[in-house]
Amino acid sequence: MEIDKIDEFVRKKGFFWQSSEIYGGLAGFYDYGNNGTLLKRKFENVWRKYFLGLNENFVEIEPSNIMHKNVFAASGHLNNFVDPVAKCSKCGTQHRADHILEDFLKENFEGLTIEELKELIKKYNIKCPNCKGEFKEFYVLNMMFSINIGEKDKNAFMRPETAQGAFTNFMRQYNILRNRLPMGLAIIGKVFRNEISPRNLITRTREFTQAELQIFFDFEEIENISSWDEIKDYKIILNENKKNIEITCNNLVSNMKIPKFYVYYMSKIQKFYLDILKIPKEKFRFRKLSNEEKAFYNKIHFDIELDLLSLGGFKEVGGIHYRTDYDLKNHEKLSGKSQKVFLSDKKKKIIPHVIELSFGVDRNIYSLIEIFHKKDGERIFLNLPSPIVPFEIAVFPLVNKSGLDIEARKIFENLSGKFDAVFDHSGSIGKMYYREDERGTLYCITIDYGTKETGKVTLRDRNTKKQIFVKIEFLESILRNLLDGKIKFEEIGKIIK
Amino acid sequence: MEIDKIDEFVRKKGFFWQSSEIYGGLAGFYDYGNNGTLLKRKFENVWRKYFLGLNENFVEIEPSNIMHKNVFAASGHLNNFVDPVAKCSKCGTQHRADHILEDFLKENFEGLTIEELKELIKKYNIKCPNCKGEFKEFYVLNMMFSINIGEKDKNAFMRPETAQGAFTNFMRQYNILRNRLPMGLAIIGKVFRNEISPRNLITRTREFTQAELQIFFDFEEIENISSWDEIKDYKIILNENKKNIEITCNNLVSNMKIPKFYVYYMSKIQKFYLDILKIPKEKFRFRKLSNEEKAFYNKIHFDIELDLLSLGGFKEVGGIHYRTDYDLKNHEKLSGKSQKVFLSDKKKKIIPHVIELSFGVDRNIYSLIEIFHKKDGERIFLNLPSPIVPFEIAVFPLVNKSGLDIEARKIFENLSGKFDAVFDHSGSIGKMYYREDERGTLYCITIDYGTKETGKVTLRDRNTKKQIFVKIEFLESILRNLLDGKIKFEEIGKIIK
Repeated sequence: MEIDKIDEFVRKKGFFWQSSEIYGGLAGFYDYGNNGTLLKRKFENVWRKYFLGLNENFVEIEPSNIMHKNVFAASGHLNNFVDPVAKCSKCGTQHRADHILEDFLKENFEGLTIEELKELIKKYNIKCPNCKGEFKEFYVLNMMFSINIGEKDKNAFMRPETAQGAFTNFMRQYNILRNRLPMGLAIIGKVFRNEISPRNLITRTREFTQAELQIFFDFEEIENISSWDEIKDYKIILNENKKNIEITCNNLVSNMKIPKFYVYYMSKIQKFYLDILKIPKEKFRFRKLSNEEKAFYNKIHFDIELDLLSLGGFKEVGGIHYRTDYDLKNHEKLSGKSQKVFLSDKKKKIIPHVIELSFGVDRNIYSLIEIFHKKDGERIFLNLPSPIVPFEIAVFPLVNKSGLDIEARKIFENLSGKFDAVFDHSGSIGKMYYREDERGTLYCITIDYGTKETGKVTLRDRNTKKQIFVKIEFLESILRNLLDGKIKFEEIGKIIK
Repeated sequence: MEIDKIDEFVRKKGFFWQSSEIYGGLAGFYDYGNNGTLLKRKFENVWRKYFLGLNENFVEIEPSNIMHKNVFAASGHLNNFVDPVAKCSKCGTQHRADHILEDFLKENFEGLTIEELKELIKKYNIKCPNCKGEFKEFYVLNMMFSINIGEKDKNAFMRPETAQGAFTNFMRQYNILRNRLPMGLAIIGKVFRNEISPRNLITRTREFTQAELQIFFDFEEIENISSWDEIKDYKIILNENKKNIEITCNNLVSNMKIPKFYVYYMSKIQKFYLDILKIPKEKFRFRKLSNEEKAFYNKIHFDIELDLLSLGGFKEVGGIHYRTDYDLKNHEKLSGKSQKVFLSDKKKKIIPHVIELSFGVDRNIYSLIEIFHKKDGERIFLNLPSPIVPFEIAVFPLVNKSGLDIEARKIFENLSGKFDAVFDHSGSIGKMYYREDERGTLYCITIDYGTKETGKVTLRDRNTKKQIFVKIEFLESILRNLLDGKIKFEEIGKIIK
């Protein structure tokens, strides 16, 4: 599907659109509508449940969005978190120098120095896309938004990643959680980056939601994973020499020299995408970043990529970053507060190392909508897997009169505590079905004129549009079994006969 | 409990503390630790479920935190959202002029003009609390944080309230939700205010979470509430002439001339606090704000107040604001985009009016911790009601060996899909109990040496510390019944015999 079609779909159907729209919009900022918010919440909850469930010493925290300047001095963002800019000498607009090249040569130029980018732009004689003017000034710009607290103090910044909130709180949380490693600190929250060229709807914006998990561990345990046997033969999908291969966890360790601790979490991430989110296998891969591409704090850096037709191929939706002890060490240095912990069983003092699992929530939402958007004649349905559907069931009266609405509402109220349910009674039944299809609601339940007499309602399946009459008293257990994957919709007929 | 004691408790027990703590902290910014985050999530989810459940045309949206300058030009924040400042001529620090007076005279001075405040400060000869210097400069400061997008564009602000995201999205959501009034747009998210004097932990900060619901309705229906009979005799608790009275909804309408539409939501808010959050009745009240006190956009403004001993009495934790058509009208004017809707059944075009239900999430979290913090000898427990406890149950092995941990984990895994459950195995059983008490976990389940043989575990009640042996096979239904309030802990013995 083309990006314009996605844009139209998500705007009309309540997913997302540009912020401050009535004022012409604010570039790089997006608002989620009612359906987008439901989908985003679901994704966040599923993410939280899955990743915090990996270890009972993984917890969620919520640090502030605005943080002390020194946090970013220590982390390196103050000096290194910069974008390469090419400025047009005619219209004065600023452009990401690597994007200018990417658009022209259809290749990825992230990670090149400003000098390298400048030379390439000159070599290919690339002009300003706005006005065809020449690029003459080339420089880097820090991507953090600074904040003036009080009258004019420039002592704070909006965080450009959630991670620093985990690092600055490491010691306090380590004590509260009773001094155990590995420890995981997850943060789901907004981050802010002064992008020169926001683009592609919610996939490159200036304000977005990250879901990140920082896993603190003893470096000496990096090859010591107790449940390694469970995953050692699991095949990781990897982009190698521009094609996708599958390689077992064992081989990733032995052939590519990736630490077991790192590979273990690669396998968990892949399972999250394939088993929970039900992303088709051929649309998922990890890609190892080159030294030029990878973030300045990472020793090993694989991106998580999904194949997005609307964006021309595999695109980053997350990453797994071996940040080593880089952050804690620098915070110790600048703050003067020790970040060393004493491991009593091993009788040693260490600064833990960190592996970061990082996910762009908005990019994932975008990907889910693109990947699960299906056409069935005129009908559109979102083929989302059950854990992330905005609603599991919808309940309608066939018409909003003759007491059907009262009957329908009774059934809705009985089911709504047990399922993610929505009630609707506006418009024709056909339109109500289509609206639910468009946001991925799995099953619709319709109360009709016969319901009172027969005690039966219509149960409709999203993907097939198939319908079956079921007794109200069986509804709950049928729905539970459908949602738990214990029966298929086609089998209901046999079971209730 | 004194505020210092609360501060110590929340820091040590993983609730919240100042942001960027290792760098000396950032005034007015707070980080939530693992237990605070769990409690905050629960509060947000309970709020969402309750208030969105009031009407099927109430939905949640998630607009961006940073918005276009014109949004706040139209809303009036650019001109009117200011704090009165008194500046010390000696040390140069800025202070909230009304707070300086409040601290000195133990009275509320919010809403006075800068001239009035200046005169009072001069009259009582109040000096700078930092250095005893004299206040000579008095002026107002805008409380919004401005944001430079791109190189130097000053065209955006951090939102100081979530409401504007609902107003700027009104028309699009109205269409998506198929043109029905009343329509509710809820937003739970961060807001940012450049407070001169942040204070009292998370009750007055520069970055905080608001949960707001904007209800759009036809002004002509303001006295026409279909379910009025259900609440007409319900008694609203109100502060009148400095004492708390109870007055029926009917009398609020007839005696105090408050519109029915407004009173209806007052009753729903009060029920949220008394019935869901289980706030003791004597600690809850509404207080009508005077014309001087109330926000510039409100026609009627009652604060929701809770009695907080640590802060010296009743304090605002939310409000119910009749904003009229003020916001939509001004957005229509400045944007040139019509905010009028055509009501086909009434054959008329209107700009809807708005009633806003607004809650400071952090203030509510603070209040819950203060109000439900109980001492039982040396033991501390949070007597939180079941819908908002971070965890409903905790599962431990008595000791972390002899296979007890494996057995315990099995039981945990069986229950964790059905309840909000946590597993722990660190430290002695007594310490584990106390830690769960401190975050309000309702029931602890301990697996001991006898469990394998007898099939029984210990079930322990948070409030009474009472314990009872129960068969593993009955655990789930006993817990379900306890949590649903169908049985009391004391009755379990009778039931399972």
